[in-house]
Order: sequence, then structure tokens, then C-alpha cells
Amino acid sequence: MIHMQNLNVGLIGGGFMGKAHSLAYAAMPMFFWPAPALPVRKVIAEANPELAAEAARRFGFENSTSDWRTIIDDPDIHVVDIATPNHLHAEIAIAAAEAGKHIICEKPLARTGEESKAMYDAVKDKDIVHMVAFNYRRTPAVALAKKYIEEGAIGQILNFRGTYLQDWSADPNSPLSWRFQKSIAGSGALGDIATHVIDMARYLVGEFSAVNAVLSTWIPERPVQTAGADALGTVRGGEGPRGKVDVDDEVMTMIRFANGAVGSVEATRNAHGRNNYITFEIHGTEGSIVFNYERRDELQVCFASDQADRRGFRTVYTGPAHPYGEGLWPIPALGIGYGETKIIEAHDFFKAISEGGSVNPNFADGYQVALIDDAIIESAAKETWVEVPQVTD
Amino acid sequence: MIHMQNLNVGLIGGGFMGKAHSLAYAAMPMFFWPAPALPVRKVIAEANPELAAEAARRFGFENSTSDWRTIIDDPDIHVVDIATPNHLHAEIAIAAAEAGKHIICEKPLARTGEESKAMYDAVKDKDIVHMVAFNYRRTPAVALAKKYIEEGAIGQILNFRGTYLQDWSADPNSPLSWRFQKSIAGSGALGDIATHVIDMARYLVGEFSAVNAVLSTWIPERPVQTAGADALGTVRGGEGPRGKVDVDDEVMTMIRFANGAVGSVEATRNAHGRNNYITFEIHGTEGSIVFNYERRDELQVCFASDQADRRGFRTVYTGPAHPYGEGLWPIPALGIGYGETKIIEAHDFFKAISEGGSVNPNFADGYQVALIDDAIIESAAKETWVEVPQVTD
Amino acid sequence: MIHMQNLNVGLIGGGFMGKAHSLAYAAMPMFFWPAPALPVRKVIAEANPELAAEAARRFGFENSTSDWRTIIDDPDIHVVDIATPNHLHAEIAIAAAEAGKHIICEKPLARTGEESKAMYDAVKDKDIVHMVAFNYRRTPAVALAKKYIEEGAIGQILNFRGTYLQDWSADPNSPLSWRFQKSIAGSGALGDIATHVIDMARYLVGEFSAVNAVLSTWIPERPVQTAGADALGTVRGGEGPRGKVDVDDEVMTMIRFANGAVGSVEATRNAHGRNNYITFEIHGTEGSIVFNYERRDELQVCFASDQADRRGFRTVYTGPAHPYGEGLWPIPALGIGYGETKIIEAHDFFKAISEGGSVNPNFADGYQVALIDDAIIESAAKETWVEVPQVTD
Amino acid sequence: MIHMQNLNVGLIGGGFMGKAHSLAYAAMPMFFWPAPALPVRKVIAEANPELAAEAARRFGFENSTSDWRTIIDDPDIHVVDIATPNHLHAEIAIAAAEAGKHIICEKPLARTGEESKAMYDAVKDKDIVHMVAFNYRRTPAVALAKKYIEEGAIGQILNFRGTYLQDWSADPNSPLSWRFQKSIAGSGALGDIATHVIDMARYLVGEFSAVNAVLSTWIPERPVQTAGADALGTVRGGEGPRGKVDVDDEVMTMIRFANGAVGSVEATRNAHGRNNYITFEIHGTEGSIVFNYERRDELQVCFASDQADRRGFRTVYTGPAHPYGEGLWPIPALGIGYGETKIIEAHDFFKAISEGGSVNPNFADGYQVALIDDAIIESAAKETWVEVPQVTD
Repeated sequence: MIHMQNLNVGLIGGGFMGKAHSLAYAAMPMFFWPAPALPVRKVIAEANPELAAEAARRFGFENSTSDWRTIIDDPDIHVVDIATPNHLHAEIAIAAAEAGKHIICEKPLARTGEESKAMYDAVKDKDIVHMVAFNYRRTPAVALAKKYIEEGAIGQILNFRGTYLQDWSADPNSPLSWRFQKSIAGSGALGDIATHVIDMARYLVGEFSAVNAVLSTWIPERPVQTAGADALGTVRGGEGPRGKVDVDDEVMTMIRFANGAVGSVEATRNAHGRNNYITFEIHGTEGSIVFNYERRDELQVCFASDQADRRGFRTVYTGPAHPYGEGLWPIPALGIGYGETKIIEAHDFFKAISEGGSVNPNFADGYQVALIDDAIIESAAKETWVEVPQVTD
Repeated sequence: MIHMQNLNVGLIGGGFMGKAHSLAYAAMPMFFWPAPALPVRKVIAEANPELAAEAARRFGFENSTSDWRTIIDDPDIHVVDIATPNHLHAEIAIAAAEAGKHIICEKPLARTGEESKAMYDAVKDKDIVHMVAFNYRRTPAVALAKKYIEEGAIGQILNFRGTYLQDWSADPNSPLSWRFQKSIAGSGALGDIATHVIDMARYLVGEFSAVNAVLSTWIPERPVQTAGADALGTVRGGEGPRGKVDVDDEVMTMIRFANGAVGSVEATRNAHGRNNYITFEIHGTEGSIVFNYERRDELQVCFASDQADRRGFRTVYTGPAHPYGEGLWPIPALGIGYGETKIIEAHDFFKAISEGGSVNPNFADGYQVALIDDAIIESAAKETWVEVPQVTD
Repeated sequence: MIHMQNLNVGLIGGGFMGKAHSLAYAAMPMFFWPAPALPVRKVIAEANPELAAEAARRFGFENSTSDWRTIIDDPDIHVVDIATPNHLHAEIAIAAAEAGKHIICEKPLARTGEESKAMYDAVKDKDIVHMVAFNYRRTPAVALAKKYIEEGAIGQILNFRGTYLQDWSADPNSPLSWRFQKSIAGSGALGDIATHVIDMARYLVGEFSAVNAVLSTWIPERPVQTAGADALGTVRGGEGPRGKVDVDDEVMTMIRFANGAVGSVEATRNAHGRNNYITFEIHGTEGSIVFNYERRDELQVCFASDQADRRGFRTVYTGPAHPYGEGLWPIPALGIGYGETKIIEAHDFFKAISEGGSVNPNFADGYQVALIDDAIIESAAKETWVEVPQVTD
Repeated sequence: MIHMQNLNVGLIGGGFMGKAHSLAYAAMPMFFWPAPALPVRKVIAEANPELAAEAARRFGFENSTSDWRTIIDDPDIHVVDIATPNHLHAEIAIAAAEAGKHIICEKPLARTGEESKAMYDAVKDKDIVHMVAFNYRRTPAVALAKKYIEEGAIGQILNFRGTYLQDWSADPNSPLSWRFQKSIAGSGALGDIATHVIDMARYLVGEFSAVNAVLSTWIPERPVQTAGADALGTVRGGEGPRGKVDVDDEVMTMIRFANGAVGSVEATRNAHGRNNYITFEIHGTEGSIVFNYERRDELQVCFASDQADRRGFRTVYTGPAHPYGEGLWPIPALGIGYGETKIIEAHDFFKAISEGGSVNPNFADGYQVALIDDAIIESAAKETWVEVPQVTD
């Protein structure tokens, strides 16, 4: 019989992300077989004990707890999964690191560069695998873009243009959830969604050397939440008193990359008609690549070397011939969903644990993204270019 | 604590479909909560005992067996899931029905109308839930099309044009898997893929009264398979002896619907560049609907009543505001994958069991589709219109 | 100085088509230089003398007439351009042929095969150039499809699926213009729009051997027109008495091609949201081609021989590297409009005159399309396959 | 008979733009009838007398000249059309203004703000109509966007993102045409293409208050041209000595609009696979608008007020129900080409002359765009935000 290690997971947070991660743990071996390891859904933590018990039943965990510290203290737990709002990431992760657990933490790594540094410092010299869950770079089409770039298929990169456009909070009556509160979220569209595109830009192009940004808050007040929350942590349609939004609704930044490329990122939650519109367009000396997550089975690529009368963007549907394809579905366009990005993420995380290596994006990456975020905030405040410090070992 | 019934599943077949169904059982309560029932992955059957044991471990089943009859005979099993090649459907389903199990059977229901009738006869008077797994009608965008039609949003339907285009067997060197053998598959592109579109046509437009078809076999011989199989049941790239293909590669049919609408379906596995290109376009007296599964998060709809200078197809991304949306992902375009169609299917199947009702498409539907298939085959042979008999109770 | 012959044109009909042809004559030398000949807009005919005079001024003709026979009788006229409703084509064309004029005639060639035969008989042994204005095959992207096919880039053609979907008469209150009257138009969507797709199918795939069709009339009565007409020959929004529509609103046909390929054509004027949706998809043994006139700058092509992980439809924007590109605009996507299809048509027509050759599609082609139309009508009436007779010579 | 004034045109420049303008003069009355005036193609100027004579014949002008001053001096000329390289615009326009001619000048108005100011000063107090040929804002879909915005259909504008991406000079071996020489062109992608998007941004959103830009020159040397030129003024594929490119290949700028909106423009000629990719996306408080010139028959618009389960971008094909539609083609998607943008431009220009009014964009607009260009250049050099001065009067 094939040997595969059981690895016990303690998941902290039973919301939308808890669901996505639970799915990944259940499904990963179904997709990738032999699996690098077998995740065991051991304990799930939620502040309310009844909700915790319900989450365990729903998401297939053996036990539940209302105190995340019991997970940290449990010697049977190998992996701590942090799927809480942002302000709790640092405390949990540092405790988990000190307890020698492998850690996967939802993005952004923390509210600020400073918090992120503390987290990185806590893990960097320990023999643990740490990962920050920028899952979209694991969309097979994005991994294919990376492969093309590494193969030199589009030559030297000249520029990168990325967007993350949503509209779920474009309504001024959508509530003041934690995502609009700096004390919990750290920042707004910047940390919540722009970071995914920044992660992709670093992954595909390279390090940022400087940024030049504008932050906008289009809806300065929103209805205060009273009770309950939907999957995004919001209660819709509030009519009561309004509270101040102290984060950005939109970020726009220009980028200078260390390798000489230039670029821009735009992220907003006020783009009516855009839902999860994560896109990038990359121009190189030998070709171009275009991606749109809303049509995530596809990658578009143009090769300058194609015969003149047969040249144009190729729409490649990812499948078995492409990254992660052997583990996914047997033909292209059968359908990559959000779950698959998390399943692949789990695969690579457990593979690193199993093989004793590391995985990307890790806490160093998460910290680097936080430094970029800090530079963006500073740039927007000072209305000038700001150099981005680089994480070093 | 919320009461939810545990229902024990015996799954027969550990290939691509076994994987998809296992995913659905694990994930269904994660998505739809409270779940109508809690599926328990009890036993999985595969002919080879070692492969069966491996499948159990991979897909999260408690036990395995190399004899599917042990599942039928097991009084603890509530649900039999048939995910085998087509020629085994009838025997298994009839045995399961006689044992009083609820049954979900992969599509097409069987190889012929006659076999399908025997299956339908076996279930129709029993107190069991039966379902045939035409999962694509459960794509949220397709369910949304159904909702629009039922609301009268496009008026009376005039015509329907559907396609299912693939290219995975367009290479003459792709092997003679069971899908190219009439004795196992019953038919070719007709039963394998056209049936999905026929199911959608019935679901969205209504019953077929007559068909007029052309069947084509473009690659008359393929390399005989020797060992192993990929997820579609094929071994690629054979070099050895070739065997005869006795099923169709392509089907094209015109349709007369009972309600006066007309239409056509085209399905082929020789369409280079098309992967899982399931599409339909429906024209009604008050609007039109267009769907393409390769971009399955979207439905296009045009309302004739829109103001003249603002009229055009709307591209609606399905999400919480649309069918099944509350159970899926919190915003549109986060990503519906193939798995979600199976998760929804499982939800509706278990809901029918839990509530003591029935579900569509059931064996009557599967039998009706088989009668349409038979009529298509007869039509193609006789080169004439053929009336479609109607399943009656 | 470059020698180019002046050729005097007499244009009969000052409606939408008169406009398009006048544009072509004025613009052709601007685009294609040196021009094969210089068209001189000499005389335009309209039944009403005042409208004729106004049309001359508007469309840049030197003279006008209210009697088309004066054009036939004028020895200075080299080219007769027939842009009238269909019922006048035959009489005018036969007279023009007898007078030895070169002839370009709007499509369809005539109302029936019989009329078309008379026209073809009138020209076939004369030393004149004759052309039927199926302009859409001259869209550069369609000409590029032809080039690919001739180069063998997609191998042997297996099937063809074409559509022509419109909605301008989907409103039951749109008037009973001549296009809905058999005595003038000959047929409905069949002759008016399906013929364009049939022309493309013959151009790209080859001759039809048999058809099997369904014709539908969705709106059996329309308001009678009283006065005036818009550019399509209609007066919109009638409120008065209704008259009977005796032509088809929609045609759907299956096709057997002489070379073994199969196919289908669907044309309707009741497809809300479709405007000038002329599409085809062609599958060959080595690749596929997809075209949509609503995005006419583009042709999509997939080559089976592309490297597995870089395979997918290429979206080729036509420009200088493609057919007719040197004469059009200096870069792709600058914008091919309807006018360009007519400018290219004029170019090829005058080139044939100048060089003493012939041009396609000519009256033999127009007659062949009419025979296909007749077979479609017969097939729909008899509900059976009908063989298509072939034009000989 | 309808009275329409003949207006004699002297066209300076017989290249690609000369062709486009000649087409517009010939076709305008065919499309818009009664025409505001009848343009008479009187004289065309090219430096070489033989080429001038040939251009007259090709483009339908009565006479030709090798000295543009003869056009200025000719009292019969009403309109001077400047279609030369940029460095000649100012001298010709100022002379024409002094001679009291109406002037249409190709874009950008001149090489710099200073030159543009001189041109504007020359016309501003004279009783002449002046226009700068930013034709793309006259694409019907762009005019429809303007209409929606003016109707308040998308509410208050929050941001604008525009691009103009091309690849015709992405090849380092494409020649050092005048477009790469500052002394002739003034700037590179900035003046040549970004100005079109800047014009649209001003048209649709409003005045720029500040810019913050990056300019890049990706190909610092190109082959020197020796003889001849294609339609863009280039000779392709040079092998000889190389000369220095002293303009930008790419511009990226952030924008602050006076009304509080923010935005960005990116233009490059090094985007492999992009041909004439002029796009914008505008987010407002009540909806969004998206345009892509490569699919110029279409405008996408999303209304936040649409019913939740029917909301999404509508793809509106422009036609008779939309701006300029009555004059163009009788149904949408018949095909708007580049020519149509010029035909509409000519219509509006002659209408202003005929009615004694003014037209937009005029020399004030052209000057304002030049001031924005100057600010962009300064911003890129200083790496800081630069305020944009406003044209007054």
C-alpha cells in the first residue's frame, strides 16, 4: 500500500474561508493521488461553542473548540490553519510557530508590515512550513502564465497591468463589516483584494522597487452591523446608524519593478458589473499574456514568432497538458472553480511538509507584500514615489 | 442541534465519475447547510480488490469491495451510486431497486431504450428516489435560464440550438476505449455527450415530438487498448493493432418539440479547439438566452422589452441572487467548477430522499432521453423524420 | 501616368443597397491603387423622377432616370448594377445581358431557380462579366478562412455549421414590407439572409448534394405598409390592417456536401439580441475555424498541430498580412465595416472586367444557390431529404 | 430641391489620413442626407508633383499641387484639411487661419503646448470653424457612452481607465519613421495614440487637474529609413544603419480629474497581439461602461438599478436607435469601420460650418490635450504629480 502520512489539521475560523479550506482538505487526495499527505480534519475553532460544534459537523472535523489556544496546545495537531479576520493572524501565527506547528494563514498576512515582520521573524528560523494563502496564483491558467514566462516564451517583460474589480460593496447601504474597519482589516481594497494582484505581479514579473499610488474612499460611512453575518462577514441592507469607513475603497498604483519593467495595479470594490474581475496583461519583447479570472479556465497568449498571417492571441483552456492538470479534471473546460485553487494550494502546502521543503508564497512573501502595501499607503499620503524595502533573510 | 439524517452510500466505480461523486458527498454539507441529509461514504466497489482499497482511501470511503453485489446486499446501505461504464447500469440498477435502495446512476441511463425501460420499470412503483446524473442542467446559469423561462421573461419559445463539442478523441491515434464500443457504450457522441444537451432541451423547452438526424463516424478504426486507463477510461497514444469503431463520432439532429418550437442539436468529439463546449441559444417571442459551459459562471439574456437604446444581451454572472447561490460562493465569479454541478446534484438527490419526494431528472427522464436516442439512430439509418414515443406512467 | 480604364456605371435602385454600391464605386480606387479600373457613377435609376434626381445628387451620379431601360439602352454604360427588390432582377439582368453590359446583381439572384436559370442562360455565353453580390464572403476574415482551408491548414473538412440571426422583424408590429411577400421576395429569411451563409458554405466547403430542412413562419400577419420606407424598405410601427406573410421567418437545414462533409444552416429574423449574426464554425481533421461577422475584424483558428500546452483558438485580426489587406487599412483592427465588403467586391468585379476574366460568385453561383433554396423549400414541404441539382457547363 | 452648399476642400497630405479624409468627403452625403453641406474635393497637395497628381486621381480631387501654400492662397477654397506629419501642422494652420479658411487638422494638434497655443491663438477670434481630428470619440459606441453619462445612467463618475495598445512597432527592426523622431512627431506613443484616449477621457469624464506619469522607450534605436513609405509612413524591415529613437514607446499616467474622479491611461506600441486596442472602463455610482474599439460595434453598460437576478453588463450593438445611427447602416452590427468615424467627423465639421457654429474637439481642445501631454512629459521627468494648466477663453 502506498505510504502517505496523516497530518492533523486545526482550523481556526468557520466562515467562508473555513469552508474553502475544509473543502480543500477533503478533496485534495481525491484530486492528487498519491497524495503528498493525508490531511485529517481534527479540530475547528470558533469563538461561540455552539457555532464551533456546528462547524465541525458541517465541515467534517472530529472536534471543535471555542478557544483557538487549545489547538496550539494540542500536541497531536501538525498544521494550524488561520482563517480568521486579519487582526488575529499575528497572535495566532506567532503562537503556532512557537509551538512548532506548520502554518497556513489567510491573506493578507497581517494588517501592517510591522505585524507581518513579527510573524515572519517567528517562523523564519524554525523547521516549519509556512504559507500565506494567495490562492489565485494557483489558478492553473496563472501557473501556465508562469511556465510560459519561465520558458522565455514572451521574452523580457516590459510591463504588467493588473486589476481586481468587484462590486459587492458598491451599494452605500451595504454594512460596515470588519472589512471596512482599519483596526481589524488593516486596509480596505488594498489588503483585501489588491494584494492578490500584487502577489501575482511578484510571482510573474519580480520584485517591486517603487510604487506611486492613489487611495480613494468613495463611501465614507456605512450602516453599523448589529447581528449575524453572511459568508463575507457582512449583514446586508442595514437601516440603522452609520459608522465611519477608515479604509480605502479603491487603490490605483504605478509600479517600477527591480528588473526594469513598469506596471500598474487597480483594485476597487465599487465597479458595478465586475464580480471577481482579477485580470492581468503582460507585454514582453516576444509576446503577451492576458488573464481574466472570471473566465479562469482560459489563458490568452500571443507569440510574436508566429507566422504573420496566423498570429493572434491563443485562447488556451487549461487541462491535463498544463500545470496541475493531471490531478484535476480529465479534459479542459470541464470546469475549474474556486475550490480547485484551494485544493491545489493544499496540495503544495502538504507536499512541502511531506518533503521537508518550503512553499511559496510563504511568510516572507506575505511580509514583502505587506511592505508593498505600506509603501502604497505612504505614497498615497505623500503623493510621491516611495521605494519598497526588500525582505532579507 | 439541527437534525440531519446520515445516509450511507455505496459507490460503484472509482474512475473520473467516482471521483466527482465522492467530492460531492464530502462537500455537499459544506455548501448547503443545514444539509438535507449527511451522506456517509460507506463502501466503494471496483473489480480489482487492490484498486478498490486504494479508491476507498483516496475517496474517503470506510470500506471497499470488489463485488458490487455486496453493496446491494448490505442492509446498511441506503444509496447506490452507479458510476460504471454504461453496459453495467441496468443490471446494477435493477438489483438495487429490488433491494429497495435509492439510486443515482450516471448518464446515459443505459445503452438503449429497451434497457432503460427495464430500469424504469424496476423503480417506478417502488418507494425509492431515482436519479440520472445529467449534472449540467444543474449549472447555476442553466438553472437561471430555466427560471427566466418559467417567469415568461423570454415569452414563448420559438427555437433551441444546442451543441456539445469536444476534441479529446479527434486524434485518430487516441485509443479504442469503451466509449467507442457499442457493446459497452450503446452509442458514441450521441449517448456520451449529446444526451446532456437533449436533457437540457427537454428541461428548458419541453418534450421532443420528432427528430431527423445524421450520424457520422469520422475515425473508423482506433488503436486497441492494452492496459491501464486514464481518467476517461482511455490509454492514449497506442501504436499497436487497430479495432473497429462501431459508434458515432458526431450526431446532428433537427428537432420538433411538442409545443411547436423547433431546434437542433449537434455533438461531436472531433471539434479541434473545443473542449467541453456545451452551448445553447434559445429564441423566444420576448427575448433570447445564450449559454456556453466553457464560460459557465455566465448566462446571457436579452429582453425585447428593454428600452431601445439600452437593449442587448446582458451577461449575468451567477451568485447569491441566483439559483443555488446561497449555498455556493459568496460572490459571483468566484468560480463555479465541475464539482459544483455534482454538489448541487447531490443536494437535490438527498433532499428528495429526506423529504420523501422525487427528483429530476429521474429514470423516467433517462428513459425518455433513451427513446430520443433510439429515434435519432433510427432517423439517421432511415434518413427520415422519426416520431419520438413518450414515456407514460 | 498609370493607365486605368474608366467604366461607366448605371445603378438601378437608390435604397440601402444603392448607397452601399455608390460608396464602393467612390472608394474603391482610394483603397486599391492602382485600381483595376475607375468606376464612373454615370446614371442612377429610381421609379420616381424626383427621387432619382435626389439620389443622383446624394450618391454622386452624373445623371438620373426614372426608367431603368434608358440605362440598358445607353451605349455609354459599361456596367449595370441591379440593386432593386428581387422580383425585378431577372427582367433587368436579361435585358442588360442582351445589351452586352457587365452586370452586378444584388442577392439573391432571383426569386426562384427557374428565374435564376433564365438569368444564367442569358449571360453564360456572352463576353460579359456577371456577379451576384454575396458580399459577406469578401469580409477579409472570411477570405482568410478560405486561404487557410486551401493551404490545408485545417485538413479535410468534416462539418460546417452556419447561422444568420437577426431581430429587426421580430416585432409582430414591424410592417409587411416586400421582404415578407413571396411575389416580390421569392422567399423570406431563406433568400434574404440564409443565402449568404449558403454562399459561404459553398465557397469554403464545396457543393451541396442534399438538404433536409424546416421552414417556420412565426408571425403570420403583419401591418400593411401605406407609404414611405426606411432603408430596409420598411415603414415601422404600423397600426392599420394586417396582411398575410407568405414567406418563412426562419429556416433550418441539414446539409450533405458532395465531398462527404455534413453541416447545417440556421437563419432567422426572430432572434432577439442578434443583429447581423452571421457565423460559421468549421471542423477539419487538422483544425477548426470560427467566424462571427458581428466581430468581423477577427477570425478564430485552431491548429491541431500546435504544441499541446500552447494549443487553442487563435484570434487573428485581419490586416495587411491577410487577404485584401494591402488595400484596406494600415493596421489590423483599425476597422473593417460593411462598406469594405462592398469596396472589395467592386474591386474584384472591375478587375475581372479589366482583365477579361470572370469573377465569383457569378450568375452560375447565384443559380446554384437558388437551386439549393428550391431544394430547401421542397424538403421542408415534403419533410424529407432532397437532392440538390448541380448547375452544369 | 433641397438646398445644400458646396464647400471646396483643399487637402494637404496624401497618405493614410489623406485617404481616410477623402473617403469621408465622398461618402458623407451618401450617409447623412440631406447633408449639412456638400464637400467638393478641389485640390490635394503633396510635396512631389507626380505623387500629388496621382493622389488627385486616386482620391477624386479636381486638381493637385506640390505647394500647400497655393491652397491657402486660393480664394475658392473654403476648407483646409491638414493631414501631414505633426511638425507641419502649426505653420499650415496659422496660414490657413489668417486666410480665413475653415480648418480640420489631424491629431495631435501640434508637437507641443507652445505650438498648439499659437494655433489656437490664430483661430480663436476668427469667424472660422476649427477642428482637431480625434475621430475615435465619434465611434457611435463612444457617443452612446457620452449619452448614457449625460443622462445620468451611471451616476457620478468615480474612475476612468483607458488604454491604447498596439504592436505595429514592437519589432526592433521596424524602421525609424517620423513617428519615432521628436523633431517631427513631438512625442511618441503619447502624442500619437495616448492623445486619443486622453481626448475620450476629457469628453466623457471632464478636465484633468493633475497627472503623474512614466514614459518608457523600449527600443532605443531603429533602422534608418532610406526610401519609400507604407501607409503609416514607414518602410518595414530595414537592415542598414540605426538611428536613435528620442520619443517614448509607452506612456502610463495616473489622472486626477477636476470633478474628483481618478483614473489612468496606458498607451504602448509594444503590446504584441494588440492592434488598435483602444479601451476604456468607467465606474460610476450607478453603473459602469466598458468599450473596446477592436469590437467597436459594441458598448457594454451595467446599470446598478437592474433587478438583482438580471443584472450584468449589457452588450449594446449600435444602430439606428443610437447616436448617428439614422445616417449609418440600417441595422446594428452591419458594420462600423474606421471610415465611419471619419464620415461622422466630416458631417459634424461641415454642419458647424453650415450652421455658423463651432464643433468639438476644436483647437481649444487640441491645445488642452497638448497641455496635458506637456504635463505628462514633465511629470515623467520629475517623477512627481504635475498640475495641468487649463485653456481659458
